[in-house]
Amino acid sequence: MTPYVQLEQEFRRLHAFRGALAVLRWDAAVTMPRASADVRGDQLAALETECHALLSSPRLTRLIERAEASRQGLADWQQANLREMRRERDHAIATPPSLVARLARETARAEALWLDARERNDFSVLAPQLDEVVKLTRNRAAMLGQHLGLDPYDALADEFTPGLRSREITELFATLSRRLPTLVNEALDRQLEGPAITVEGRFTPARQRALCVEVMRAVGFPFDRGRFDEAGRAFTEGVPGDIRVTTRFDPRDPFSGLLGALHETGQALYDLGLPKEWRDQPVGQDRGMALEESQSLLLEMIIGRSREFVAYLRPLLLKHYGVDGPGWSEENLYRRLNTVVRGPIRMDADELTYQAHIIVRYELEQRLLSGELPVRNLPEAWNELMDRRLGICPASDNDGCLQDIHWAQGSFGYFPSYGIGAVVAAQLWEGLREEQVGVSQEIIRGEFGSVIGWLRENVHALGAKMEVPDLVKHATGKPLHAGPYLRYLERKYLLDG
Amino acid sequence: MTPYVQLEQEFRRLHAFRGALAVLRWDAAVTMPRASADVRGDQLAALETECHALLSSPRLTRLIERAEASRQGLADWQQANLREMRRERDHAIATPPSLVARLARETARAEALWLDARERNDFSVLAPQLDEVVKLTRNRAAMLGQHLGLDPYDALADEFTPGLRSREITELFATLSRRLPTLVNEALDRQLEGPAITVEGRFTPARQRALCVEVMRAVGFPFDRGRFDEAGRAFTEGVPGDIRVTTRFDPRDPFSGLLGALHETGQALYDLGLPKEWRDQPVGQDRGMALEESQSLLLEMIIGRSREFVAYLRPLLLKHYGVDGPGWSEENLYRRLNTVVRGPIRMDADELTYQAHIIVRYELEQRLLSGELPVRNLPEAWNELMDRRLGICPASDNDGCLQDIHWAQGSFGYFPSYGIGAVVAAQLWEGLREEQVGVSQEIIRGEFGSVIGWLRENVHALGAKMEVPDLVKHATGKPLHAGPYLRYLERKYLLDG
Repeated sequence: MTPYVQLEQEFRRLHAFRGALAVLRWDAAVTMPRASADVRGDQLAALETECHALLSSPRLTRLIERAEASRQGLADWQQANLREMRRERDHAIATPPSLVARLARETARAEALWLDARERNDFSVLAPQLDEVVKLTRNRAAMLGQHLGLDPYDALADEFTPGLRSREITELFATLSRRLPTLVNEALDRQLEGPAITVEGRFTPARQRALCVEVMRAVGFPFDRGRFDEAGRAFTEGVPGDIRVTTRFDPRDPFSGLLGALHETGQALYDLGLPKEWRDQPVGQDRGMALEESQSLLLEMIIGRSREFVAYLRPLLLKHYGVDGPGWSEENLYRRLNTVVRGPIRMDADELTYQAHIIVRYELEQRLLSGELPVRNLPEAWNELMDRRLGICPASDNDGCLQDIHWAQGSFGYFPSYGIGAVVAAQLWEGLREEQVGVSQEIIRGEFGSVIGWLRENVHALGAKMEVPDLVKHATGKPLHAGPYLRYLERKYLLDG
Repeated sequence: MTPYVQLEQEFRRLHAFRGALAVLRWDAAVTMPRASADVRGDQLAALETECHALLSSPRLTRLIERAEASRQGLADWQQANLREMRRERDHAIATPPSLVARLARETARAEALWLDARERNDFSVLAPQLDEVVKLTRNRAAMLGQHLGLDPYDALADEFTPGLRSREITELFATLSRRLPTLVNEALDRQLEGPAITVEGRFTPARQRALCVEVMRAVGFPFDRGRFDEAGRAFTEGVPGDIRVTTRFDPRDPFSGLLGALHETGQALYDLGLPKEWRDQPVGQDRGMALEESQSLLLEMIIGRSREFVAYLRPLLLKHYGVDGPGWSEENLYRRLNTVVRGPIRMDADELTYQAHIIVRYELEQRLLSGELPVRNLPEAWNELMDRRLGICPASDNDGCLQDIHWAQGSFGYFPSYGIGAVVAAQLWEGLREEQVGVSQEIIRGEFGSVIGWLRENVHALGAKMEVPDLVKHATGKPLHAGPYLRYLERKYLLDG
C-alpha cells in the first residue's frame, strides 16, 4: 500500500470518529436527557482525544512526508486531498498539548466570567481573564503561523476561510466601509416612505414546523437523509449522508423559525452536495465557515427575503397560519422581512447593517492580538468604532463589547468569515443569475432546481479541492471582490429589488 | 502510576467509546434518517474496531499481568475489577481476527438466508449456511474455552451468565422440566373455570405513552437521566447516567406497549443503580444478560402482572384510555394478563410456557455445537423436543426451528440466560418479600420504593463484583435454585396468586 493510500485509510477512520462526534453533539442539543451532560462530556472528550492523537501521531507525519515526496504520481483530487491532510495535521500539532490544556482551562474560566460580567453589565469583571486568553491565543497564533508559514492572524483565520489572507480581507472590508454608511442612511430614508405594518398573533410550533417542512421540501432538503428538529437555537450538525437541521420557534414571530431553518438548509444542501466519492476524506469536506455561511445567507437572505420568494411564500403562510389581511400582503411581507434598523446588537442586525458589526470586530481582534489595544481599553475602542462604522453608541457593555462570547472562548479569526460569507453569497448569486436567467420565475413557482443545481455544480461538488479565493474565481469567473455585494444591496435597498 | 491505575485509565476510555456506541445505536433505531444506515455503519465499525484494538493490545495484556502480580495490594472492588478486565480481554483476544472476520461474513450471509428461508417457510434453504456458522462457532468456542479454562459451551455462555456453568444450568432446567409440563396442564384446566373476556378498542400511541410515563414515574424511572421513546421494538440502550428505553405501541392492544416499557424499565433501573464510583470500569457494569433479564422479568412478569399491580393499574387504565365495563374489572384484567396458551412461538409465549421454549433451545444448541445433532436434522429434533417438553408439534419450519434469528447470527449460549433470568427473578422476589413484608400494600398504592430500594442494595449496587451464583447467594442467602421459581408459579397459577 502506498503512503498516500495508507493516509486515506487513516483519514477514513478520522471521518468516522468525527461523524460519531457530530451525532453525539446533535443528541446533546436535541434529544439527550437534561442531566446526562457529564456522561456525554466524557464521551466527547474521549473521541476528540482520539482524533487529535490520530492527527498528531509521528506515523501520520511520516506518511504525509513520504506521500508528498511522490506527489507527482497523484491525480489532482488526490493532491488536493494530500494538501488538506497536511493542513489538518499542521493545525493539530502546531499547538503543543500544554498550551491546548492551558487554553482549555483559561477559556473555560473566561466563559464563566463572561456570564458574570453579562449579569453585572460590567466588562471589567471579564477583562483580566480575557487578557489571559488573548495572551495565550497570541502564542497559539504565533506557533500556528510558524507551522503554516503565515502571519499569526492569517494562521487563525485560515481555519475558517482557507487561503484568504488578512491583506485581502482588509481590502475587501475597506471597500465596504467606504460605501455602507451612506448606503444605510439612504436605505433608512427610503424606508420612511413605506414602513412595514407589524403582524401579530400566536403561531404554534406545530404550524411553524409544517410550514418549514413544506418550504424545505421544495428547496430540496432530503428528509430521508436528514432530520429537522426544534432546538434552543438554529444549527446544522452531522455528516453528508446524515445531516440534521434545527431551528427555534418563537410563537410570537411567524418568520424567525422559518428563516433560521432556511439558513441551516443552505448549509445542509452544501454538505449534501459535497463530492460523494471523497465523502470520508479531507478534500471531500466543505470549504470552511465562510463558504458555509455563503450558502446559508444565499438561501436565507438573498433568496428567502426576495420579492420572488415572498410571492411563493405568501400562500403558504396563509395556509399554515390561517391568516390574512393587509399585514400579509406581498408588499408588506417583503418590507417586514427587509426592515433596516441601526442597532447595537449583531445577532439582531439586519442584512444591511450586519456587515458593520463584523468589520468592527475584525479590526478590534487584530489590534487585541497584536497588543496594540490593551484588553482593558476594549469598551472605549468598541464604542468609538461602532459610532464610526454604524453611527451607534452602545449604552452599556452588554450592548457593546460583552455581547458575543467568541473572544472569551479564544475564538479569533472567526468573525470575518461571517462577512466574507455575505460577500461570496452575492458574488455567487450574480454569477448564478447570469447563467440561469429563469430563476426569478422559478422561485415564484417554488422551484429551486436551477439554483441548487448551479450551486451543486459550481460550489458543492468541489468540496475542499480549492482554496476559497480559487473556488470563488472558478465558480464565477472573477476574483473575489465587493462589487456584486454592493450592487446587490444597492439594487435591493435603493431600487427596491 | 501503578499498572492497575493505568488499566483503569484504559478502561475509562473503553467505557466512553462504548457509551458513544450506545448513543449511535439508539439513534439508529429511534431518530436516524431512514437512508443514513451506510454512514452509521462506518461510524459503528470504526468505534468497534477501536474498542477491540484497545482490549487486544499487547500493552493491555502486559498491564494486566503486572497488576495481577501485585494483586494483594488491591482492595476487593479493585481485585474484582481486575478480574473483569481480564475476562473482557480474554473474550476479545481468544478469537483470532481472521476467524472474527469469517464469522462476520458467514453470519451476515446466514442472516440473509434466514430471511429467505422464513419467506419460503423452508429450513433447508438455511441449513447449509447455518452449518458453516455452527462449525465456525464450534472453533470459536474451543478457542475461547482454552483461554478461559472452560468447556467450549460454558465459554460461550460465560458472556451472558458469568460464573454459571452448564452443569448447573442443566441441573436447574432438569428440575424445571420435571414439574413444568404437569403444571401447565393443571393451570390450563384451572383456567377453563374462569376464562378472561377480551377487551377491544383503539388505544392511540399518545394515550399509551401517557399511561407508560405515569407508571414509569411511579416505579422510579428518572426522566432527567433517561428517555422513553416509541420504536419498532422494545429495548434499552445507553449507559448509566443516560439510559434510554423504548417500547412498541400496538393500537389494538392496550397492554403490550406498557408491558414492554415495564420490562425495559426493569433493566434501566438496574443500570441506574449500578455503583456510581465504578461507573466507567468493568466492575461497575451490570452482571450480564441473565441478571438484566431477571430485573426485567421481576418488574414485567412478577410485579407487573400481579393482583396488587392490577389494583394500582386499573384506575390509570380507566383514566388514560377512558374505558370501563366488565372487561376492565380487576379480576378480568388479572386473568387477561396471565392467560396461559400452549403455542409454538417463543416470542408469543406466556410466563408459564416460556421456560419450555428456552429449555428446548438450550438442549438443541448444545447438541448442534458438539456435532451430535447434524444441522440438517434440526427440524425433526426441534419438533420432537417441543412435543416432549410442551406437548406442541409446530406445523411448519416457521413455527419451529426458523422462528429465531439467534443461531444464524452465531449467537449460542445466549438462550439459557432468558430462562435463568426468570429463575433468578423469582428467587430475588422471595428474598425481597421476606425482608420487605409491606410490599403488597405498597404496590397497590403505586409505591415501589421498598422494591427498588431492596434491589438496588442487594443487586444493582454490586455491579459485576461477583459471579452470578455468588451474587444470587449474597442477595438471598441461598444458592441459586429452582424452588422459589416453581413455588411462585404454583402459587400464582394453581392457588390464584
